[in-house]
Amino acid sequence: MMVHAHRALMAIPVRLTLRSFASSAAALKWEGGVSMVQGASRGIGLEFVKQLLEKNEKGHVIATCRNPTGATGLLELKNEFAERLNILPLDVTVESTIEESAKSITESHGSLNLLINASGILSIPSVLQPETTLSKVNKSSMMLSYEVNAVGPILVIKHMWPLLKAGGGFGTERDVAVVANLSARVGSIGDNRLGGWHSYRASKAALNQLTKTISVEFARKKDPVACILLHPGTVDTDLSRPFQRNVPADKLFTKEFSVQKLLTIINSTKQQDNGKFFAWDGQEIPW
Amino acid sequence: MMVHAHRALMAIPVRLTLRSFASSAAALKWEGGVSMVQGASRGIGLEFVKQLLEKNEKGHVIATCRNPTGATGLLELKNEFAERLNILPLDVTVESTIEESAKSITESHGSLNLLINASGILSIPSVLQPETTLSKVNKSSMMLSYEVNAVGPILVIKHMWPLLKAGGGFGTERDVAVVANLSARVGSIGDNRLGGWHSYRASKAALNQLTKTISVEFARKKDPVACILLHPGTVDTDLSRPFQRNVPADKLFTKEFSVQKLLTIINSTKQQDNGKFFAWDGQEIPW
Ligand SMILES: NC(=O)c1ccc[n+]([C@@H]2O[C@H](COP(=O)([O-])OP(=O)(O)OC[C@H]3O[C@@H](n4cnc5c(N)ncnc54)[C@H](OP(=O)(O)O)[C@@H]3O)[C@@H](O)[C@H]2O)c1
Ligand SMILES: NC(=O)c1ccc[n+]([C@@H]2O[C@H](COP(=O)([O-])OP(=O)(O)OC[C@H]3O[C@@H](n4cnc5c(N)ncnc54)[C@H](OP(=O)(O)O)[C@@H]3O)[C@@H](O)[C@H]2O)c1
Repeated sequence: MMVHAHRALMAIPVRLTLRSFASSAAALKWEGGVSMVQGASRGIGLEFVKQLLEKNEKGHVIATCRNPTGATGLLELKNEFAERLNILPLDVTVESTIEESAKSITESHGSLNLLINASGILSIPSVLQPETTLSKVNKSSMMLSYEVNAVGPILVIKHMWPLLKAGGGFGTERDVAVVANLSARVGSIGDNRLGGWHSYRASKAALNQLTKTISVEFARKKDPVACILLHPGTVDTDLSRPFQRNVPADKLFTKEFSVQKLLTIINSTKQQDNGKFFAWDGQEIPW
Repeated sequence: MMVHAHRALMAIPVRLTLRSFASSAAALKWEGGVSMVQGASRGIGLEFVKQLLEKNEKGHVIATCRNPTGATGLLELKNEFAERLNILPLDVTVESTIEESAKSITESHGSLNLLINASGILSIPSVLQPETTLSKVNKSSMMLSYEVNAVGPILVIKHMWPLLKAGGGFGTERDVAVVANLSARVGSIGDNRLGGWHSYRASKAALNQLTKTISVEFARKKDPVACILLHPGTVDTDLSRPFQRNVPADKLFTKEFSVQKLLTIINSTKQQDNGKFFAWDGQEIPW
């Protein structure tokens, strides 16, 4: 669609005109907006897909995950929302799968108004254990956490950037497209009082720095895109399950509750929120 | 030496006694203290070695670098300070070289009172270029910067930890042993106004988070060790050379000046500075 708009306008020399036309053309076709949820097979990502489809009758959702055929939760949603849900394979550690997704979305929708990076790892049985002490820090865990939690989401933004610029806020209630990266309060350096979890903490601090770095470029280029970082609270998912023992019941959120809160933040994001780090309740978290 | 003290005291059941004896025995032997400078072949690290040897007539220095036989600056210092300078091979990306160094220092000195992690990379011709835009971010640069700038120094601390605990402040003017990690103001997320340099910024933010994480464990265990992060200013070395064009002359420090300032901070470090991030002038830098 974008492609057609571009082709038709090839002769028009004014760049701004071309861009606004392409964007509003995208908006006309995609009333309700186009959202991409990356890391959508399970947990918070899957819940985002569900609520985005249920709460916005017109919105389109592109859900990506490593293994679509095994993503039963997504396949169930596909049964219900066939028209408005696309599922694409994407592994953040394999850049070609990110490029393929970008190409596919360019052809199918031509723009994005929201990108949620929900993928992340904290522990993987017999591969990755959150460190309880410096003595247990090892290079392979550090590198793996960084690759998945920090580098991965940034490569996704890199390839979706043109689609987000084309989309902006058109077709949504916002003025800007939003990139929402799932970070974690334990990634905060200023708030680090307990220590431990070296690989995870470092990867999320790096994700925060990278998101901030990108937000500066988006602002300087006046792109209609705001990047934010989100802490979902401690949420009852596979990720937190091995570590829930010491969490008081009222501090352990359902994914329904957390995602509802996070969507409220996302939907009200403005240009001036670009580069900020919010908890589920809207409070800013120190770096 | 430590080894002997431990052996002789094997029968004593009180841990504290054993530890203080070992420490003061180390102190008796190493009046003036034992300092390790990691990343000492060039630049700021080499200057630290020089000033530590020149300013403290009794201090011993262990200088590590990737390739001792090619480290001409260190070899010159070895001519002058043969008795008080040891040079050991250490590449932060090869953990076995870190372990070998720890073993060697355990045998030669048995304790450390200061560890300066001065190694770091920003650019390497035809391998690593600081990114000017998100479009240029690539995985290999991200991973390499992280491996060298964030993971490397932490693995060094992991293996030197027993030596630092044994050393504490004994033989020096301080109450505690000090770990000083060379970070950079551009690693600060809160202070990031220019964007760019994604790999380097993220690796230094991660180093900050890791240092903070370690400082929490040291404090909880009441180890006589304080970890600090240092920003040296923009210093005229190989690292900054390709990027000095826009630096006003009075903002480009000599390594002599910067290291003198940083040593003042290190020498006056107290337990309560553990986990803090200081610029060359002693001002704290936001995370
Ligand atoms: N749950 C919490 O309490 C909590 C707290 C703070 C922050 N967070 C953050 O919130 C985000 C979502 O967490 P969650 O609780 O929903 O975790 P989860 O239930 O464990 O789900 C993690 C998701 O990440 C995906 N993923 C893992 N590696 C991937 C890769 N290489 N490429 C693409 N996708 C990959 C997984 O896909 P597969 O099914 O293919 O493995 C899965 O969809 C994470 O970034 C996490 O760090 C969670
Ligand atoms: N200069 C500045 O303006 C500035 C500003 C802010 C922060 N810093 C930080 O200050 C520290 C020192 O910088 P500098 O200006 O002195 O840089 P430099 O002159 O380029 O020296 C870098 C040092 O790091 C060593 N190194 C690189 N890779 C290594 C590895 N894998 N294992 C062990 N050592 C390795 C180099 O050894 P080889 O000789 O073997 O390559 C060299 O000794 C760095 O952490 C840097 O990020 C510098």
